[in-house]
Amino acid sequence: MPSVELYDSTLRDGTQQEGISLSVEEKLAITARLDALGVHYIEGGYAGANPKDDEYFRRVRDLGLSHSVVTAFGNTRKAGGRVETDPTIRALLDSGAEVITLVGKASEMQVRQVLETSLEENLAMIQESVEYVRSQDRRVIFDAEHFFDGYADNPEYSLQTVRAAVDGGAECVVLCDTNGGAMPDDIARALADTRDATGARLGIHTHNDADTAVAGTLAGVKAGAAHVQGTINGYGERCGNANLISVIANLKLKLGVDCVTDEQLSSLTEVSRFVAEAVNRRPFPFAPYVGASAFAHKGGLHADAMEKAAESYQHTDPAAVGNTSGVVVSELAGRSSVMRRIRELGLSAELTERDAREIVQYVKERENRGFAYEGAAASFELVVRRLLPDYRPPFELIDFMVLAENRRRTSVRDNGEGMPLYTEATIRVRVGGEVLHTAAEGNGPVNALDNALRKALLQYYPELEVVRLTDYKVRVVSESATTEAVVRVAIESADEVDTWQTVGSSPNILEASWLALADSMEWWLIRHRSR
Amino acid sequence: MPSVELYDSTLRDGTQQEGISLSVEEKLAITARLDALGVHYIEGGYAGANPKDDEYFRRVRDLGLSHSVVTAFGNTRKAGGRVETDPTIRALLDSGAEVITLVGKASEMQVRQVLETSLEENLAMIQESVEYVRSQDRRVIFDAEHFFDGYADNPEYSLQTVRAAVDGGAECVVLCDTNGGAMPDDIARALADTRDATGARLGIHTHNDADTAVAGTLAGVKAGAAHVQGTINGYGERCGNANLISVIANLKLKLGVDCVTDEQLSSLTEVSRFVAEAVNRRPFPFAPYVGASAFAHKGGLHADAMEKAAESYQHTDPAAVGNTSGVVVSELAGRSSVMRRIRELGLSAELTERDAREIVQYVKERENRGFAYEGAAASFELVVRRLLPDYRPPFELIDFMVLAENRRRTSVRDNGEGMPLYTEATIRVRVGGEVLHTAAEGNGPVNALDNALRKALLQYYPELEVVRLTDYKVRVVSESATTEAVVRVAIESADEVDTWQTVGSSPNILEASWLALADSMEWWLIRHRSR
Repeated sequence: MPSVELYDSTLRDGTQQEGISLSVEEKLAITARLDALGVHYIEGGYAGANPKDDEYFRRVRDLGLSHSVVTAFGNTRKAGGRVETDPTIRALLDSGAEVITLVGKASEMQVRQVLETSLEENLAMIQESVEYVRSQDRRVIFDAEHFFDGYADNPEYSLQTVRAAVDGGAECVVLCDTNGGAMPDDIARALADTRDATGARLGIHTHNDADTAVAGTLAGVKAGAAHVQGTINGYGERCGNANLISVIANLKLKLGVDCVTDEQLSSLTEVSRFVAEAVNRRPFPFAPYVGASAFAHKGGLHADAMEKAAESYQHTDPAAVGNTSGVVVSELAGRSSVMRRIRELGLSAELTERDAREIVQYVKERENRGFAYEGAAASFELVVRRLLPDYRPPFELIDFMVLAENRRRTSVRDNGEGMPLYTEATIRVRVGGEVLHTAAEGNGPVNALDNALRKALLQYYPELEVVRLTDYKVRVVSESATTEAVVRVAIESADEVDTWQTVGSSPNILEASWLALADSMEWWLIRHRSR
Repeated sequence: MPSVELYDSTLRDGTQQEGISLSVEEKLAITARLDALGVHYIEGGYAGANPKDDEYFRRVRDLGLSHSVVTAFGNTRKAGGRVETDPTIRALLDSGAEVITLVGKASEMQVRQVLETSLEENLAMIQESVEYVRSQDRRVIFDAEHFFDGYADNPEYSLQTVRAAVDGGAECVVLCDTNGGAMPDDIARALADTRDATGARLGIHTHNDADTAVAGTLAGVKAGAAHVQGTINGYGERCGNANLISVIANLKLKLGVDCVTDEQLSSLTEVSRFVAEAVNRRPFPFAPYVGASAFAHKGGLHADAMEKAAESYQHTDPAAVGNTSGVVVSELAGRSSVMRRIRELGLSAELTERDAREIVQYVKERENRGFAYEGAAASFELVVRRLLPDYRPPFELIDFMVLAENRRRTSVRDNGEGMPLYTEATIRVRVGGEVLHTAAEGNGPVNALDNALRKALLQYYPELEVVRLTDYKVRVVSESATTEAVVRVAIESADEVDTWQTVGSSPNILEASWLALADSMEWWLIRHRSR
């Protein structure tokens, strides 16, 4: 089996995505996960560019990694400067990283228009920088920036940059599709030609601007690349980098290329979700291989057929990447999928056949009324648990009231906009034997209800403090949709570790919101309550 | 330039994605957009499967499409049955669609394990169904389900299914990677071989389970496919279908394949966002070509360099797909699209240059606060009209109050569900010189507000009776989404002739709802009021 080196750039290129920034602790935690996943290189960041990355390089040495080598990333020496006194080169060496990734221009146009230096000087910058870093007892990977665009314009010059890096002593030259627009076939051709022309050991680095980053990376491997770069979940500037999760899964399962062990492969789903959590992004449910929906079926046809021939409806075994085939609970799929979910919850032993039938009936009836359990596993779990004989709800609603009031004259032009609405909710809940009666305001009726419920429950369950709402959606679900129609409220909540989804449905948006809110807190409490 | 037919399956395969469901109105609105985009075929849905799709097929005939042909999708006849009496075939014909897309099994394993019939019977099902539909004066496209998995196992049988469809009279046989795991190279090889072996006119249909759907589709085209299937934004079951947005952009800009005009290509960004809005999904900012971040640069290095040589940092011109490059021209682009909308309303003559600047400023500021005028033309028109010197609003809000109360003990098991919430709104509006003060109840706060406003206005404008709300959607729009975050309410209204969209945004869902409701009635009244 051929093998390929994996080079993760989540901590450097990944953090170029809008809205992503990582603390040193988060970077260290991700490093440990990538090490366990068996990634060969972890690009820690820019050396000398900011105190955070410097601190990372200091502290990462104490992690005692078993599989991965941490690399520091930075430019070749400046044009017209001396490599021995170049501040970036100095910082790269000071990072203490054993492997230094130097980046330089591999495109004539970039050299002329952006570096504004001569083609010869750029070659000298590459070769001297690599040589000097090698002379300081470090290994060097060379990232040939803008290689594919440069190769399309002036292939001979791009090849010279590769030769300069090899001559300097780089152990691997990574051909980068920096602008992300190269097609897989063009990548394969240019990479194979470069390998023939230079004999260099090559790597491939793609971006997803044409929606083909993963395919471009695989095409590079098939054309002879021995090293692939990417980021977890494809985070990165613009449309992101090649998604290393998909690349690893495809290398192992589709191309039969060795890169991680089977056991490491089975941690892919967990790694993907862990990194999403760390960068504060919702895990993308439709992500290939690792998304919550990646192996789920909604269509009645498929769900029926799944029971007959599971493997004939899955392109690969979800367990291989640590995922599960959660058949979606929906009216289309019916009884068998509800039963499967109950088994997955580990509750099937506690339920009689009659209970199970009752649950199926109940779920179908509620889905007819607008609930949707397919995206709300926590609410589904409560449906099942409430039927168990010893179920003890952590709280019960007695009643509530919401008042929203605007009593100030509004401007003509905006017809009501900007008026200060005062909204408050009063609520009574029973916890244990006690009735709690309290009130709270909010910047809307749902927020006020949330605040009031939370205020009441915190008296009993102070640990609930960590629970927060992370998303709230409303949608009309009945056919002739009006404000009189049934609305579905879907809520996502999170604590420091988990994310869970609940659902409520009613003609009244407040009731639907209440049901989803109450489910969220009830679900968390039955897992965490100390009394 | 070679050319390829585009076949959109957003309304059928797209709605298989978890959490997506579309009303008939939404399906018709998307159909009109796809027609303007120049898609050749629009798959409207399953015929005979549910009343919603039947209504769609009835009403879509009145749209008067100029580019697209609507197709109805369904299975070949049942095993052992007669094609003349098969209910699905009947429903397909009854849909009135000119082109029928029949789907059948192209894999030995699927025939044996899922259909549980003989290989010969499956071939008969395909050929007879195609023949019969052709005999009823319809054109037929045949979707060869599970083709690539089947071809890998037993290529000869898969080829026989293709021949059966061709012999029956199908004008195009679409090779489907139903499970989504085929690699682009394997797709190219199988498709080229099939073309050679059968001479059939072929299409390609891929899914994104291996993160290579777009590349697989392009590989199919390069290997000879003359027809491509996909969905807008890649919506679809599991990890989604091939993203038709990316496919179209790549065909035109990377492969030089003719499929839509340059002008139609420049509407891609708008179409992508419109469909996202319709399915109530946040437009994905990192989407290739059309995402808000697709041409934006975060890295200091790149943003600097962009100033020197813009094109050297973009794989393609964002204007070609109607997008903008976030770094340089977002102000300008915002302005030009606002000006274009004003011209489209026929109001540009009445506005001074200064008014126009003020509107641009106002729209941008409000979009920053969560409004989205892209899917709310009526609200946008009001923004413009309110600035005209002789604008006379048909009513003005003075103030309102909403009370929602539940005072009955609830059941333990459902924790609040099913309790009778009493909700009422009081409202004061000024119409002409008069202040109208009234109250109404509703089955939720928005409905109560709607009822109260309507009750007040009907005294002056009895013709308003015909206006009804047809859709209501809420979504959290700010980054750190909680019930405290900003919500956007999008409302669709209709009278006997028109459908129009309005938008409101606020941290308070009631205020956001009020703004969208008031805009809806105000827009209708300025067009229809008799005094």
